[in-house]
Amino acid sequence: MALVVQKFGGSSVADAASIQRVARRIVETKRAGDDVVVVVSAMGDTTDELLDLAGQITADAPAREMDILLTAGERISMSLLAMAINELGVKARSYTGQQAGLRTDTRYGKASIVGVVPERILKAIDAGQVAIVAGFQGVNELNDVTTLGRGGSDTTAVALAAALQADVCEIYTDVDGLFTADPRIVPAARRVDRITYEETLELAAHGAKILHLRAVEYARRYGVPLHVRSSFSNKEGTWVTDKPVGTEAEEEAMEDPIISGVAHDRSQGKITVVGVPDVPGIAAKLFEVVAGAEANVDMIVQNISTQRTGRTDISFTLPEADGRATMRAIEEAEDTLQFTEVRYDDQIGKLSLVGAGMRSHPGVSAKLFGALSKAGINIEMISTSEIRISVVTRIEDLDAAVRAVHTAFDLDSDESEAVVYGGTGR
Amino acid sequence: MALVVQKFGGSSVADAASIQRVARRIVETKRAGDDVVVVVSAMGDTTDELLDLAGQITADAPAREMDILLTAGERISMSLLAMAINELGVKARSYTGQQAGLRTDTRYGKASIVGVVPERILKAIDAGQVAIVAGFQGVNELNDVTTLGRGGSDTTAVALAAALQADVCEIYTDVDGLFTADPRIVPAARRVDRITYEETLELAAHGAKILHLRAVEYARRYGVPLHVRSSFSNKEGTWVTDKPVGTEAEEEAMEDPIISGVAHDRSQGKITVVGVPDVPGIAAKLFEVVAGAEANVDMIVQNISTQRTGRTDISFTLPEADGRATMRAIEEAEDTLQFTEVRYDDQIGKLSLVGAGMRSHPGVSAKLFGALSKAGINIEMISTSEIRISVVTRIEDLDAAVRAVHTAFDLDSDESEAVVYGGTGR
Repeated sequence: MALVVQKFGGSSVADAASIQRVARRIVETKRAGDDVVVVVSAMGDTTDELLDLAGQITADAPAREMDILLTAGERISMSLLAMAINELGVKARSYTGQQAGLRTDTRYGKASIVGVVPERILKAIDAGQVAIVAGFQGVNELNDVTTLGRGGSDTTAVALAAALQADVCEIYTDVDGLFTADPRIVPAARRVDRITYEETLELAAHGAKILHLRAVEYARRYGVPLHVRSSFSNKEGTWVTDKPVGTEAEEEAMEDPIISGVAHDRSQGKITVVGVPDVPGIAAKLFEVVAGAEANVDMIVQNISTQRTGRTDISFTLPEADGRATMRAIEEAEDTLQFTEVRYDDQIGKLSLVGAGMRSHPGVSAKLFGALSKAGINIEMISTSEIRISVVTRIEDLDAAVRAVHTAFDLDSDESEAVVYGGTGR
Repeated sequence: MALVVQKFGGSSVADAASIQRVARRIVETKRAGDDVVVVVSAMGDTTDELLDLAGQITADAPAREMDILLTAGERISMSLLAMAINELGVKARSYTGQQAGLRTDTRYGKASIVGVVPERILKAIDAGQVAIVAGFQGVNELNDVTTLGRGGSDTTAVALAAALQADVCEIYTDVDGLFTADPRIVPAARRVDRITYEETLELAAHGAKILHLRAVEYARRYGVPLHVRSSFSNKEGTWVTDKPVGTEAEEEAMEDPIISGVAHDRSQGKITVVGVPDVPGIAAKLFEVVAGAEANVDMIVQNISTQRTGRTDISFTLPEADGRATMRAIEEAEDTLQFTEVRYDDQIGKLSLVGAGMRSHPGVSAKLFGALSKAGINIEMISTSEIRISVVTRIEDLDAAVRAVHTAFDLDSDESEAVVYGGTGR
């Protein structure tokens, strides 16, 4: 008998029929002998509808009030799900974040979990009940409701699984697991059976949308095994753990590095600061200005300066949402930075190849660059980590780049999987 | 500077525009120098929509889950209202029943308030903020959400006003106050300026729908002055207090009893138990059976038995909703009650005339019966209290009866008030 935490996103509970389907799935697990704690998001479009209502009233809602408003969504889905499970003859009780002991700091709209005290959930488990917990929300020291921001429900599920020492945290979504690439772009993409937290983090940080970065970080820190799987089938999905792929024997037999997948990201922009003086400390000054604009810088490239001019160019990428404010901050610092020009480019795409042991296999980058070159795709920027290589291309070349790299690393499946690769909601 | 509790029902906050209108009204009061605490119901149809969702999933929802579900409604309306007030430049914070200190017993769906500990509301007032409180809901000793049942938001408002020692509890509705009769039936009905708790209770108990019985009982117990008024105008409405109408001098000058109004009720049924033995204790036995079926009996009439048969008939009225279960209980007790027949009649209407000093003015009943007789309306049952006379008629005669009595007691206004007489929601 195991303790299983199951997380269902908004698209899995979009209407009464979906809620009943999810209820049957939960009841199956319970009847098979496991204890089940469920974390649920708001129904389908509820959050958008509430945001729309708020938007009709104000463009500048106080964050505290917005959190109270949005948490109504999970209150609805969790109680309906509890009703549906009770209707199937299994006892279920629903709990708000406050009732489940999800304690957070006071940063409304993007609160961090500071502790989980799941007394009532433990009591429910002891009483043989299925506990349904509202995702995405907690309570702060003022007894005010907070929301956890993007990926909040995944984080709730992982945090509860850690606090309850659950055997597994199952993340249900509308696809069968994590794929070697977005199947909408690469129809031959394969489902990954096992993957490490680190690789999943790299994929999530560089554009893959199935699992939220924050939930994976939490799972890694507390060693919570994640199982990403489809709510529409009983197939095994992708296991995310700290163990590398395969058994030790298998590993030794393998010479090639293990490639987990190809992520892509269309949401970045590139700023190029042209003609800054090539003197020590200039990059520090620039990124102080950028940090002041609260931009999350991703890749940075500095050209080698030409002896003749004593000037250099610095390019970096950042989320498009941060573009305008960052450009303004740089332009206002013209006196300090002494650049000749600053340019913004939102027509870039980023491809990231993620896998274990890349650094120790120089052949990986060579193969990657070769594949792109053969496909006639120009590389504008490059950055690497222990288990990742990212390149920036023109946005219109991105899909072709993903396909070329996927094929070059022998990731293509024999049979095409006809699935739609989607986000998990919040 | 006064402390004012204002309660707005669901129809006053049906959409974003209505919420903004209510916000302007609250801000007016605040800017005039008063402290304001607001109690708000769920937006328009929200409750019905949530009930419909639950109905799609189960016909037998656990009451605890239903309460969690339904309280999502006020969470939405209260946070939107707080946003709208903030948008107008006045600080506002919203509070759930739990946060506002509304403590109840554990009877989900129809909880009673056991205490009000409004610490956070007092702090908000001290900080110069408008506190918006969710109506209809509280928290029990298990830290579970409860709902107060019908009239719940009115009761929340009165309970908060009592705990805060507010100067007045304003109940906003879509009419100008309490009327001498339902203006849909009697277009000449007049608004009542002042009325006592007791008279309001009799009106509410006998069919008037503007104020809920329970809220009025609470107001009477704690001496909270109620002001029932329109959310569409700034006119004075009806004041409900423990003081009788007018000044003492005026009262002495008046000889006639003060008639407050004519209530009517179409929702009652009548059960007649025919031919029960006319022996001591038979009524006690019958109403023991009726109480077992949890019916709320209203009027009771026992015919004088005929010496010849030694048998009598007993009739009583009760809410139609209790009719079926009560009939079944009586039929099952046939051996004990030894009746010859039992009949159910849902085609009855009840008219109640309410006013101070009726008992001491025997002319009141005579005038009432005379007016009905002149209108050709047959009276089936009669009951009286210190300040009320009720009669049962055929349901199709009820409207004519109300009009006849309203006119006979000189309640008709000179000018017809063009308003719609509606309920206050929950």
